[in-house]
Amino acid sequence: MAKVAVLGAGSWGTALSIVLADNNHDVRLWTHREDQAEEINRTHKNARYLKEATIPSSLTAYSDLEKALDDVTAVVLVVPTKAIREVCQKVKQALTRKVTIIHATKGIDPDSLKRVSEMIQEEMPQEQYEDVVVLSGPSHAEEVGLRQPTTVTVSSHTIAEAEVAQDLFINENFRVYTNPDVVGVELGGALKNIIALGAGISDGLGYGDNAKSALITRGLAEIARLGTSMGANPLTFAGLTGVGDLIVTCTSQHSRNWRAGNMLGKGYALDEVLDHMGMVVEGVRTTNAAYKLSKQQQVEMPITEGIEQLLFHGAHPKDVVDQLMTRGRRHEMEDLADILGNQFSS
Amino acid sequence: MAKVAVLGAGSWGTALSIVLADNNHDVRLWTHREDQAEEINRTHKNARYLKEATIPSSLTAYSDLEKALDDVTAVVLVVPTKAIREVCQKVKQALTRKVTIIHATKGIDPDSLKRVSEMIQEEMPQEQYEDVVVLSGPSHAEEVGLRQPTTVTVSSHTIAEAEVAQDLFINENFRVYTNPDVVGVELGGALKNIIALGAGISDGLGYGDNAKSALITRGLAEIARLGTSMGANPLTFAGLTGVGDLIVTCTSQHSRNWRAGNMLGKGYALDEVLDHMGMVVEGVRTTNAAYKLSKQQQVEMPITEGIEQLLFHGAHPKDVVDQLMTRGRRHEMEDLADILGNQFSS
Repeated sequence: MAKVAVLGAGSWGTALSIVLADNNHDVRLWTHREDQAEEINRTHKNARYLKEATIPSSLTAYSDLEKALDDVTAVVLVVPTKAIREVCQKVKQALTRKVTIIHATKGIDPDSLKRVSEMIQEEMPQEQYEDVVVLSGPSHAEEVGLRQPTTVTVSSHTIAEAEVAQDLFINENFRVYTNPDVVGVELGGALKNIIALGAGISDGLGYGDNAKSALITRGLAEIARLGTSMGANPLTFAGLTGVGDLIVTCTSQHSRNWRAGNMLGKGYALDEVLDHMGMVVEGVRTTNAAYKLSKQQQVEMPITEGIEQLLFHGAHPKDVVDQLMTRGRRHEMEDLADILGNQFSS
Repeated sequence: MAKVAVLGAGSWGTALSIVLADNNHDVRLWTHREDQAEEINRTHKNARYLKEATIPSSLTAYSDLEKALDDVTAVVLVVPTKAIREVCQKVKQALTRKVTIIHATKGIDPDSLKRVSEMIQEEMPQEQYEDVVVLSGPSHAEEVGLRQPTTVTVSSHTIAEAEVAQDLFINENFRVYTNPDVVGVELGGALKNIIALGAGISDGLGYGDNAKSALITRGLAEIARLGTSMGANPLTFAGLTGVGDLIVTCTSQHSRNWRAGNMLGKGYALDEVLDHMGMVVEGVRTTNAAYKLSKQQQVEMPITEGIEQLLFHGAHPKDVVDQLMTRGRRHEMEDLADILGNQFSS
């Protein structure tokens, strides 16, 4: 039994807390909102973010970060990408001992173009943590909260630390695999939200499953293209945190990035969509980050570029999707070959 | 304008005929049932197999194969895998000139373990055709019939013949790409039906999208594993006929393999399911073929093996899916690395 703090009581933080509590760990769920902490402790529900799930009574919610972090051996960061640096600054002050840091946040910082684990490493003094582990994969929080079968991947530079995370989370319903490719695991999780926006836009325009699956397929190619240019193992994109997470996010009603895209496809403006969602839609900022990275890495990312134009420069959804569907290429391998640096094209 | 015969007036044959007729070709749709040919010519509908679509009046249906094939320059074969050899025998007798053969049939023969293009080549004298082209990709017939945006791949050993097929079919709504990897294109299209059965079984058991996407991800790995062992280019499985078709078949209500799996997951027996479907469920015979191929090629295919046990040896759906979800492996790369012959694992 370990003492673990989970920081962030949105749907995914709450669901991961439930997994840890089911495994009999001493779980402290931190939220910056006092009323939310109080609600969770009193009702064992998180009505706003994960209403169907019952939270084990052994789990305690805190709005005081120092209390939440007292004597823990692992910290699970599940806050929006935008809040990562600020929360790390607070964690740094409050930690009482060396911990394993696990993060489950899917994004890229559009200012520094850093992945989440890189931001954590920049903000936290090295002597405060063993390693940063990323936890990612096809996992709607709603289903995890209901103990439905789910598989995820954990990745860190030191295999021992990934295994610490694996041991904390694994149970009969929540299967955890390790993968040494931190870059690929983080990028797959972040970039799929862009494609989910695109899938939602296509559906919102009234196009069918044929169009959507073509878009997802090309999305996987451009994710792999950027990822390998940044040092990821291309095989990771064929795995749970690549194609697996892409499928679940692009084809399921639970996905908020898909839902946001769906509204965009129906003609709502970005402001209206974000107001209506009331939760962070990571794909919006990630699109901008990935767009900048594609320029920096000189990698072709037509879907990301189209959605960047739509989100920030007034392009019309139908024009963006139609342009993607009727691009000039005639040979499929042109789209695929450079994923692996042409090693397999012939 | 070309004179083209489409053989097989099921949903996919009818949809492909519509694409060709929309492109102003002289299209002859052959069905062995006289009443169906008469219905199509009279009502411009195929009520049983593609009820929403309107068939251009320029298209003529025939039940007489000789008349359908008279003076055509291309033959599109869209009959069930089981009927391929028999239909080829008849085509051989009736052809009046050398043709391009295009097939859009997704299966593997469980007796000879041959792909569809191999069966065609075995049955047809070489002097009767230029080459055999396979047309495959994420394409529900229902959506193609409604002219919704769709992308497919055509593949043949001679690029010129793939381009003949590309030119015949391509239009604004129906985008056609070439790929030189015949083996990969055919295997991707055939094997995804096994995974669609599995996805349907998982859904039928009441499991969620997390479980299903894990199963699809592993399905892609085992498709690629068998495919590369048989000489396919691994990149093809990242494309339209691999991951694209897999997604559309596993996550869409239109898919009859998914629907059959769904009934199996709910506890219906295979006989009941097939009776209820009233259409060919290719995944059933393909499972048996792939299972045999996995033994022949000494390739691990746990999903195929589980579904083989369920379909033909009385295994219970829940046991099969639970076993797949809780397999002993702890490292994701164990599942992925051998796709590319370990070139990328480290």
